[in-house]
Parts: sequence; C-alpha cells; structure tokens
Amino acid sequence: MEKNKNLIGDLIAALTCLPGVGKKTAQRMTYHLLQRGKEDALNLSDILKETVLKTKHCKSCRTLCQGDYCDICSDQSRNDDLLCVVESPADIMNIENSTNYNGKYFVLLGRLSPLDGIGPNEIGLDILNEKLSSGIVKELILAVNYTVESDVTAHVLSNLALKNSVKVTRLAQGVPVGGELEYLDQRTLSKAFEKRTLY
Amino acid sequence: MEKNKNLIGDLIAALTCLPGVGKKTAQRMTYHLLQRGKEDALNLSDILKETVLKTKHCKSCRTLCQGDYCDICSDQSRNDDLLCVVESPADIMNIENSTNYNGKYFVLLGRLSPLDGIGPNEIGLDILNEKLSSGIVKELILAVNYTVESDVTAHVLSNLALKNSVKVTRLAQGVPVGGELEYLDQRTLSKAFEKRTLY
Repeated sequence: MEKNKNLIGDLIAALTCLPGVGKKTAQRMTYHLLQRGKEDALNLSDILKETVLKTKHCKSCRTLCQGDYCDICSDQSRNDDLLCVVESPADIMNIENSTNYNGKYFVLLGRLSPLDGIGPNEIGLDILNEKLSSGIVKELILAVNYTVESDVTAHVLSNLALKNSVKVTRLAQGVPVGGELEYLDQRTLSKAFEKRTLY
Repeated sequence: MEKNKNLIGDLIAALTCLPGVGKKTAQRMTYHLLQRGKEDALNLSDILKETVLKTKHCKSCRTLCQGDYCDICSDQSRNDDLLCVVESPADIMNIENSTNYNGKYFVLLGRLSPLDGIGPNEIGLDILNEKLSSGIVKELILAVNYTVESDVTAHVLSNLALKNSVKVTRLAQGVPVGGELEYLDQRTLSKAFEKRTLY
C-alpha cells in the first residue's frame, strides 16, 4: 500500500545527501518546506532534476556546463596564452568573481591522491599535456589549494609545464586581507615574512 | 535559446529557499551534487516533489500527514484522555522519540502573534475548543515553547481548558540534563531553584 510509505521520513533521509546537512538539519528543512515553502520546494525539485540531467563536462576544460563547450572556452575574446589550473568548477566561479583574469581554465576535478584511486588519468593530465605541448599556452597558473595533497599535484603539474617549456606560476601566499597578525598561524606568518615585498 | 539558461546559477538560487542555506552554502551544495551526487540529487528531486504534493494536514490534529487522518489520530490504542498541544509537527516527532507518551496531539501550527496576523483562528482554537468541550479529554498538556509569545498562547489555551473543566499541565522547567550550573542563565537557575523537588 503506497499510503503507508513514510514520505516525510524519506524526504528527511534524502536531504542528508547535501553536504553539511545531518538528520537534525534535514528535519528542520523538511518541516520548513512543508509548512512555509511548498512553492519553493516544487521549484527546487524541478531545477534540481533539470540541472543534474543537463549538466556535463566541457570537452576542453572539464568544467561543468550545459553544452559541449563551456562559455569561457567558447569565448573568442579570451586569451589563449594563459591557462589557469583549478581543482573544482566552483574555483572558476570564485576567480571570475574576484579577479579580472581573461585567460582560459583547466579543471582537475580533484587532486592527485593515489590511495583514493585518483591518479594522472582522473585529473586529466593527458588532456592538459596536449594543451601544453601545442605551443599556444605561454603561462600555466596553478590556482590549486595550498594543502599537502595539492602541493604534490602542483609539483607534478609544474614538471609537466617545464618539460613543455611553459612558464609556471602559483598564487601568492601571505596574510589574508583584513587579517590580524596576532591571530595568524605560524606557517602563514613565516611564509609572509619570507616572501615580503617592496612597499 | 534554452541553452543560454544558467542552470547552475538557477540551482544555487533555488537551494537558498532551504532554512539556514545562504548563497555560499548553496554553491557548495550545487557543486557537490553535480560532481559527486547526481543519483542522490535525482532521488531528492523526486521525493521532494512527491512529499510536497501528497502531504496535507490531519483533519483531527492538524499535523502533516499523507491521508485525511495521521497515524497517531487513527491509532485506536492511544489514550483519548490526554491531549498534548504542540506548536509544530516537528515537536510531535521529538516527543514521540523521547517519551513514552501514549495520548493524542493537537498542532497549533504557530503561536498567537496578532501583529503577524496569527490569531485564534490560525492556531485552530475553534477545533481545540470542540475537542475540549466534548468531555473526552481529561488533561491538556501544554508542550509549547517557553518564550514570551508562547507564554501568551499557553495562557489562552489554559483558560480555554479551565472553562471546559479540563485539567491543564505544562512541561517542567529547570536545569537541562548534562547542564552545568556555572553556565546556566539566571532565569533558568532561578526557576529551577524555585521549583526544586524532593530528592
């Protein structure tokens, strides 16, 4: 009997697939939607399905997009000399919103992590190598995270670029904007001190 | 052209309808679902729509349920003498999970708040009055919040019950389990002191 299906319980369980959402939060979301947000919930349901079904990876840079190629890769006005490597599509959105970078991107969709089965193929090193060996790219900008795992990835990418005689740069490290030295961790402070610039 | 629709942006916007989810969290959720949870997302989309479309209010206690009457109201084995008044359907779930209460419930779906247009009709006082005047209910348990607004509601409900010669009780106030006196707020401590019980 379908009537016996516990829909509210099912919805609570389904919402926990969202990152950062546990059972308690999912419960609060469920009752909120059912009591005060039915229209919003139906809209969310439709957009969620449509987006998941229609989104694929750009054939050139591997970011998430709707067509075969993403808007940035199909944009003729953008500079092909610069290639910025990021770990996730969300990073592209952040860089686009914060900088006036006008080059292209390449998305690793992760970082090298052999123990988790993420090797050179998973992060698309073959595609990247093709781009670098084509002679079009003049500078490879490493916009990967500053964690131990990403440092390894950065090292591998840098070797690949140098092998193809492409200049490699990486995002600057230092004191964050609005940061107070008193609360800065030791390693960041040490890095900022070491890399101090002319004022 | 449909291809130009920004589905990812739309999904981020749609997710902010969830309580406690801002733009940044919605963005993280979106990229998580598109990269690592497509199946979960489709499942969530279906359950969300089905639950919203099939959920209505129980004709007897006003909680959210799938049929005309909720499981608790249709359960013949539960005690009709006791009626527990709660503000939201989520409270029923909490009480069911934490206590062995075996009576019935009544859901206000809010609390009296004339400035927000929530008056006696909105919280279903007419239905509650009918239940109380039927002579079946022997005790009305007020399981409403302990805030100023809910205190007013509790006062009104209590008057309604007394008018119908029904006994009224309210949840005990005091030190929470695991609570340390040092960190307890003054009003709770004062209440707990005043209502101290034989040990």
